[in-house]
Amino acid sequence: MEKINEVIKNIKDLDQGFMAKAKERLDNLTKPKESLGKLEELAKLIAGMTACENLSLAKKVIFTFASDHGATEEGISAFPKEVTAQMVYNFLTGGAGINVLANHIGARVVVADLGVACDLKPHKNLIIKKINYGTKNFTKGPAMSKDEALRSIAAGIDIFEQEYSAALIENTGGSVRGGQKGIDIIGTGEMGIGNTTASSAIAAVFTAKPVKLVTGKGTGIDEEGFENKIKAIEKAIKVNRPDCTNAIDVLAKVGGFEIGGLCGVMLAAAAKRVPVVIDGFISAAAALIAAGIEPKTKNYMIASHSSVEKGHKIILEYLGLKPLFDLNLRLGEGTGAALGISLAEASIKILTQMATFKSAGVSERVEE
Amino acid sequence: MEKINEVIKNIKDLDQGFMAKAKERLDNLTKPKESLGKLEELAKLIAGMTACENLSLAKKVIFTFASDHGATEEGISAFPKEVTAQMVYNFLTGGAGINVLANHIGARVVVADLGVACDLKPHKNLIIKKINYGTKNFTKGPAMSKDEALRSIAAGIDIFEQEYSAALIENTGGSVRGGQKGIDIIGTGEMGIGNTTASSAIAAVFTAKPVKLVTGKGTGIDEEGFENKIKAIEKAIKVNRPDCTNAIDVLAKVGGFEIGGLCGVMLAAAAKRVPVVIDGFISAAAALIAAGIEPKTKNYMIASHSSVEKGHKIILEYLGLKPLFDLNLRLGEGTGAALGISLAEASIKILTQMATFKSAGVSERVEE
Repeated sequence: MEKINEVIKNIKDLDQGFMAKAKERLDNLTKPKESLGKLEELAKLIAGMTACENLSLAKKVIFTFASDHGATEEGISAFPKEVTAQMVYNFLTGGAGINVLANHIGARVVVADLGVACDLKPHKNLIIKKINYGTKNFTKGPAMSKDEALRSIAAGIDIFEQEYSAALIENTGGSVRGGQKGIDIIGTGEMGIGNTTASSAIAAVFTAKPVKLVTGKGTGIDEEGFENKIKAIEKAIKVNRPDCTNAIDVLAKVGGFEIGGLCGVMLAAAAKRVPVVIDGFISAAAALIAAGIEPKTKNYMIASHSSVEKGHKIILEYLGLKPLFDLNLRLGEGTGAALGISLAEASIKILTQMATFKSAGVSERVEE
Repeated sequence: MEKINEVIKNIKDLDQGFMAKAKERLDNLTKPKESLGKLEELAKLIAGMTACENLSLAKKVIFTFASDHGATEEGISAFPKEVTAQMVYNFLTGGAGINVLANHIGARVVVADLGVACDLKPHKNLIIKKINYGTKNFTKGPAMSKDEALRSIAAGIDIFEQEYSAALIENTGGSVRGGQKGIDIIGTGEMGIGNTTASSAIAAVFTAKPVKLVTGKGTGIDEEGFENKIKAIEKAIKVNRPDCTNAIDVLAKVGGFEIGGLCGVMLAAAAKRVPVVIDGFISAAAALIAAGIEPKTKNYMIASHSSVEKGHKIILEYLGLKPLFDLNLRLGEGTGAALGISLAEASIKILTQMATFKSAGVSERVEE
């Protein structure tokens, strides 16, 4: 908990001065005022998050964390548990959806094993921070111990901080100028057969909505599987009684290691004033944990899309986040976040690269 | 009309074979079936439009056409008419919103003067196809003659075909292999003080909706200007009686030269099986004219966003197009189309670059 406390004391409010400066510039660019709608709001928000001069979102990283879930024993997923490990190899060889979309937007993908149920073959681009070989079946007791929950969050913090420092040294040769960042913006992503089940449980606990309202069909289960899933989540909550005022308790009892890891990434990014683009339902569940630990983390969150998983909208509303778009996505991995990062970068290019009325010699609107 | 007829006879149906092949591949990629939602639908659609092997959307062009509108005399815009010409220079020096977003997505912007009210200084990147020095005030008679309407469409066809041929020679050194295209995808954009007024008139005529329902505040007029705008449009329709079964008649009586030009671009692109990403309200009005001339042009249209201009949604519904996103944009120039093109390219990269279950050695879903 010490490391977590160390990080969260650095999570600050949005910088109102930078937001006001961004708004002033946006209003002077060669376009009708506010005519770029949500892109302008986004640019202003990111200015407040980053609070730096020479704002750029060139350095983009997506954190895709993998882990297994003991609740798969309950017949809650359309895919066998082995797929978690298989997909990790797919991430490492560049064949997954997130690889394609990260390439498309010029982002790097950081892949980590937080708790896959088998030993993965080492690979130069695989970070291994295995907390355990999958969580326990949460219908029979806590998914993990409190210590494991804390260690999963700490692992996420470590992974972010190592990437940040390494990138900073790589980009600057070690001589860091004021305000320069190792990473400009991040996206969160995950892979874990069974992890929509854990996420629905987290959503139900925090938002106090009935399980049925926050549970979807994940990768595409049939009606029987869907009934199993709802029953498993209801049982997990009944058996474990997670305390919604204690985010670590919720993570331990009904969460997952990749969810804890992503929560750690979110806290660490917020502490460095790095915007966090939330992907889908599982990332949003991690955001609930992060916001539960330190509500100011929400200042640094951008919701990319509205997922097909119906609990996603409910979490975003609870967090006060408005998604940028809805493309009926339900893949995870960080795919929606990648598209959201591209819009965020577009918004910052608008802010920093467009001409003003004055610089372009364009007449302003007729005085009313 | 001869040139237009020559083009439209080459506009074909979507290729069902390529669509089926795309669907088959999408269903075998390492992701739950259809979990990339609208991106998958888009990829399938583009496969049907382009009907080519080795599908890529690397060569992206946005056509941004400028022209003036005589109806500005009626006090219908928040900006003075001079802004049209000033913004053309801004496009040419790279300071406008469309320049920034086109750079962001790796697209080229083709800027053309279809009818700006003054003589523009020549510039190596400015195409001059001036039909006239702005349209006439359509509250007093037709905006342009029938001949001018036809010439504006033909000018758009010429501009597209020249760009297409030039790019094909540049990319291939003249030795074109089968199926290779000079341009892979286009976006439409425009600049013209007063052109939302013309577009509302076009929308009202085709959709038979009351003018009030298809008229918005354009660049941001006040209430008085808004009343002027509605009255001007109602008067234009009453005075000119455009025939909704004759798209050329509608263009001539209540349209604009940039709208005719974009209509020509759409027809020419469709004839080459090049997907057309529609920007906002004015581009959608041009799409109405194009679909009026040849309904199959709709096969090649992708609606990028849903604009703040309320007539936009109504036009898209009329055309049977569903926008990909809604970011409250109302700038035009092709800015929304640029973002839409990026999504289209993402969808094609998904289709062509992701691994299949077989190639990645990932287990498929459990048999039900």
